Amino acid sequence: MNGDIIFHQLFELESSTYTYLIADAKTKEAALIDPVLETVDRDLKLIEELELKLKYVIDTHIHADHITGAGEIRKRLGIKTAVSEDAEVDCVDIPLQHGQELSLGDKKIKALSTPGHTDTCMTFQFGNRIFTGDALLVRSCGRTDFQQGSSEKLFQSVRDILFKLPDDTIICPGHDYKGHMSSTIGAEKKFNPRLNLSIGLVEFKKVMSELNLANPKKMHEAVPANLACGKKN
Amino acid sequence: MNGDIIFHQLFELESSTYTYLIADAKTKEAALIDPVLETVDRDLKLIEELELKLKYVIDTHIHADHITGAGEIRKRLGIKTAVSEDAEVDCVDIPLQHGQELSLGDKKIKALSTPGHTDTCMTFQFGNRIFTGDALLVRSCGRTDFQQGSSEKLFQSVRDILFKLPDDTIICPGHDYKGHMSSTIGAEKKFNPRLNLSIGLVEFKKVMSELNLANPKKMHEAVPANLACGKKN
Repeated sequence: MNGDIIFHQLFELESSTYTYLIADAKTKEAALIDPVLETVDRDLKLIEELELKLKYVIDTHIHADHITGAGEIRKRLGIKTAVSEDAEVDCVDIPLQHGQELSLGDKKIKALSTPGHTDTCMTFQFGNRIFTGDALLVRSCGRTDFQQGSSEKLFQSVRDILFKLPDDTIICPGHDYKGHMSSTIGAEKKFNPRLNLSIGLVEFKKVMSELNLANPKKMHEAVPANLACGKKN
Repeated sequence: MNGDIIFHQLFELESSTYTYLIADAKTKEAALIDPVLETVDRDLKLIEELELKLKYVIDTHIHADHITGAGEIRKRLGIKTAVSEDAEVDCVDIPLQHGQELSLGDKKIKALSTPGHTDTCMTFQFGNRIFTGDALLVRSCGRTDFQQGSSEKLFQSVRDILFKLPDDTIICPGHDYKGHMSSTIGAEKKFNPRLNLSIGLVEFKKVMSELNLANPKKMHEAVPANLACGKKN
């Protein structure tokens, strides 16, 4: 809501997912990043109230912990869904490549390929914000033990792509489980316990291999549904 | 984190409470608004990492749904607690009056008396943001059926104090239960179902009288603890 950009961060409590509504204030063209099926009504109501023109629904990756709202929004309003071209989602309208840009008015959303949590994760850059999905989280990062995850790739994505951005770039994560809502590249370079600049690839891979996390509760339902743009069987 | 102001919104999941960390970027003087006892460690860690000088802990009111972190932070670091002078909290260091200002560097936090949810609620203005506690919430407002609550006073506080602020003023609420994180005065004037400009006092009082909400789970513990700055018995 500062100046020429409209920005709303929204939270889905059950899966601790952040959904983001971004728009160009002049033309009111908008994009919704990582909507959750259960909160589609809330998000569309906000878009209507703010008189925005929803142009894209973007998924940062094929989620394993919740069902995307992308398919439902396309069904209701015909809005185009954008996701990595490598995600092999048949129903995607805009298959994205690294470096590709989507426009909201005269502003650009730039897609950056940041695999590692899954092999098709993308981060989206809009103004001084980046929407990192589950690649880089506040003081954390996405797990790498399923969906073709790779600690080596995630390390490269964070160090070679994200940490090359300016230190004051605001990180808008896909989730948080401790009530953090944002961070900056500068802060994560210093304070991310897994990925700060003092940590090397060998140590990172060891930490990630020892997480021993249970699979997300909804994984067996969510992954197939998300490969079908959020359609439940 | 925009320019000369540092701003972090934080969430406590059990009570759905928002805590706010605000600071002057130049001097690094900071204030923490509505900290929750359970998340004091998280908040102080962030303050340390950002190298901020915490100057004030501010409570918007005597909370009924969680225990303030103010007393714990004073105990550990000797930070001064500020709350309405009418709240009759013996241990408060800075009893605030309507219109009083606290400084962070050359910037001011202005206290506005906005009773109604409780009789001593205050809203705090910092730059183009207001921290409304439980007076005005996103598309909602605080209940008025305990702690000397008054629907009439809340209506006046919102209409005569908050709605007189510029439409692009950003509202930072004390809670949200649907995943909204902020709003604007302009949006609430139009879309707040209880308090939008088409609604009169009689209708508002009727709506509030029919809410029939259960008391907060922690009320019997939280109110006495908060009157003692967060000390548990």
